[in-house]
Amino acid sequence: MKTVDAYATPAAKAPFEKTQIERRDLNPEDVLIKIAFAGICHSDIHTGRGEWGETNYPLVPGHEIAGTVEEVGSGVQKYKVGDRVGVGCMVSSCGECENCKNDEEQFCLKGMVGTYGGMLDGKPTAGGYSTHIVVDENYVLGIPEGIELDQAAPLLCAGITLYSPLHHWGAGPGKKVAIVGMGGLGHMSVQIAHAMGAEVTVLSQTLSKEEDGKKFGADHYYATSDDSTFDDLAGSFDLIVNTVSASLPMTKYLSLLKTRGALVSVGAPEEPLEVPAFGLIGGAKIWAGSQIGGIKETQEMLDFCAEHDVAAQVETISADQIDEAWDRVVDSDVRYRFVIDTATI
Amino acid sequence: MKTVDAYATPAAKAPFEKTQIERRDLNPEDVLIKIAFAGICHSDIHTGRGEWGETNYPLVPGHEIAGTVEEVGSGVQKYKVGDRVGVGCMVSSCGECENCKNDEEQFCLKGMVGTYGGMLDGKPTAGGYSTHIVVDENYVLGIPEGIELDQAAPLLCAGITLYSPLHHWGAGPGKKVAIVGMGGLGHMSVQIAHAMGAEVTVLSQTLSKEEDGKKFGADHYYATSDDSTFDDLAGSFDLIVNTVSASLPMTKYLSLLKTRGALVSVGAPEEPLEVPAFGLIGGAKIWAGSQIGGIKETQEMLDFCAEHDVAAQVETISADQIDEAWDRVVDSDVRYRFVIDTATI
Repeated sequence: MKTVDAYATPAAKAPFEKTQIERRDLNPEDVLIKIAFAGICHSDIHTGRGEWGETNYPLVPGHEIAGTVEEVGSGVQKYKVGDRVGVGCMVSSCGECENCKNDEEQFCLKGMVGTYGGMLDGKPTAGGYSTHIVVDENYVLGIPEGIELDQAAPLLCAGITLYSPLHHWGAGPGKKVAIVGMGGLGHMSVQIAHAMGAEVTVLSQTLSKEEDGKKFGADHYYATSDDSTFDDLAGSFDLIVNTVSASLPMTKYLSLLKTRGALVSVGAPEEPLEVPAFGLIGGAKIWAGSQIGGIKETQEMLDFCAEHDVAAQVETISADQIDEAWDRVVDSDVRYRFVIDTATI
Repeated sequence: MKTVDAYATPAAKAPFEKTQIERRDLNPEDVLIKIAFAGICHSDIHTGRGEWGETNYPLVPGHEIAGTVEEVGSGVQKYKVGDRVGVGCMVSSCGECENCKNDEEQFCLKGMVGTYGGMLDGKPTAGGYSTHIVVDENYVLGIPEGIELDQAAPLLCAGITLYSPLHHWGAGPGKKVAIVGMGGLGHMSVQIAHAMGAEVTVLSQTLSKEEDGKKFGADHYYATSDDSTFDDLAGSFDLIVNTVSASLPMTKYLSLLKTRGALVSVGAPEEPLEVPAFGLIGGAKIWAGSQIGGIKETQEMLDFCAEHDVAAQVETISADQIDEAWDRVVDSDVRYRFVIDTATI
């Protein structure tokens, strides 16, 4: 066992405290990673503040992890000491179910094991707000040269969350894709959709981030607070990816789709949305969900991002700024993703 | 112009009356069809009773038309006198938009012209509750030998309404398909899905039609009034086709889908459904709509039905029984589709 420094929230809405946690001795297939950066994901906050059901405290969040390999188990084949690596939302799954065999471990029928807040071998998992982590090499990603580690960290959740639906639903040349929201997820989505060759439109509440959006690759930028947007863009899009958790007026958004177009939600409010089925039936439209991606697809995403110069735009903070950063994420006051410099832990 | 007998409803909820209507002189591409049978579709009732917005009265409904060619225009190429033919939900479309060019005239961007209640060349269209109809040959379907005309009529709407989503969403060998509802649409859906090679489960309110369902090809039959159905079948289906217009508890139905499974609605209530986005995000599930099919696909469906002995189970009525039949459709008291013997008009 290795005792390492970490930052934990001791209870819902309690400030973070520096603490020490145990990382397991290396099994043959394990990799010990010295964490360089850990991204802050809005889901860390929902979990840490007990907004998504029961949370076991103290909680060490963090599932956007980038670092280097410090030690490998005797059977590790994919990585060696010094390799640049990442860990995303999961550190284990059953490996045997239909979904795991189909490289969709995120939908493991026995339940994937979350990087934090999950249970593995009878012990709670602890995430990336720490200096080191031990992970089975099959759940470790290689970070290609050409992406800085701080910019890579958010790809492990935010990046794959957007890459997967864009890839699955066919974003590419000749396709008109709208991205709803220009936050942490949205800014990744614009870059990835643009890199895939799609014509990209941002639908944001206001035009305040238009300059950034176009820098990230948006061809068009519209304010959803302006009702004429929905008239102007009626029937326009092959694909709309909704990155926001606000309760969208679905009738209006579905009206923006072409025939057989798809609206894919990766963000969602807690309460059900009111959706008129006729908004789907007329035009054979689709509303779908998407949730991160499997390990194979996550590696594919990282390689794609390196090849196309796609990276998160980050604001680096020290560990003692986590509480403040969480508040700022809730207030949408970040452009566009916080990463914790874990050397400050 | 040709004056023909018809049955029309003179006002919302007024009884049908025998009347006479004009059918246009044949344009070069027109076919004059002697109607043998006209199916009664629930949408006839919604329209006729003014439940779907404004209706122009008197209204001659009927978009499930089967008959024989009595006369052809000078330029008609596909049909000759005596051919067995059908007409479905549309009699014209722009022919030039993206959707028309893509053989999806039902989604014509300028609006398809409905077989009844639409406007064509400045005149209201009148449907199949009549002895004859004149239709552009491009909107006329050939009814293959091997399907009786009375059993063919309901295929023109009910048949294509189910064939299209089953085909589009991949019903076939190795796929588990659930059909919600065992009414006019449901009984077609079970037969078509079975003929496509899928493993078919009916989800009906009760088990009252189980024997019929299995005769139509269902492998399994469950009552949705029994809550254990939703436990037993959790995560089971690649595809669920919802044929009912009741307001489904969507959370429960989405839970029946496998990962990346699709629930396709062809029936829908007037009011919006409450759908939890997390029910789609977890499992990357899909909720889609579907609406009839294009002319090419409708012909494909008829050929498929002939090849696989799929046909509507009909109860034939005379024209003076239309009012009673409409009430019985509303009461779900028909097994499984009424057709009007238009010789009685």
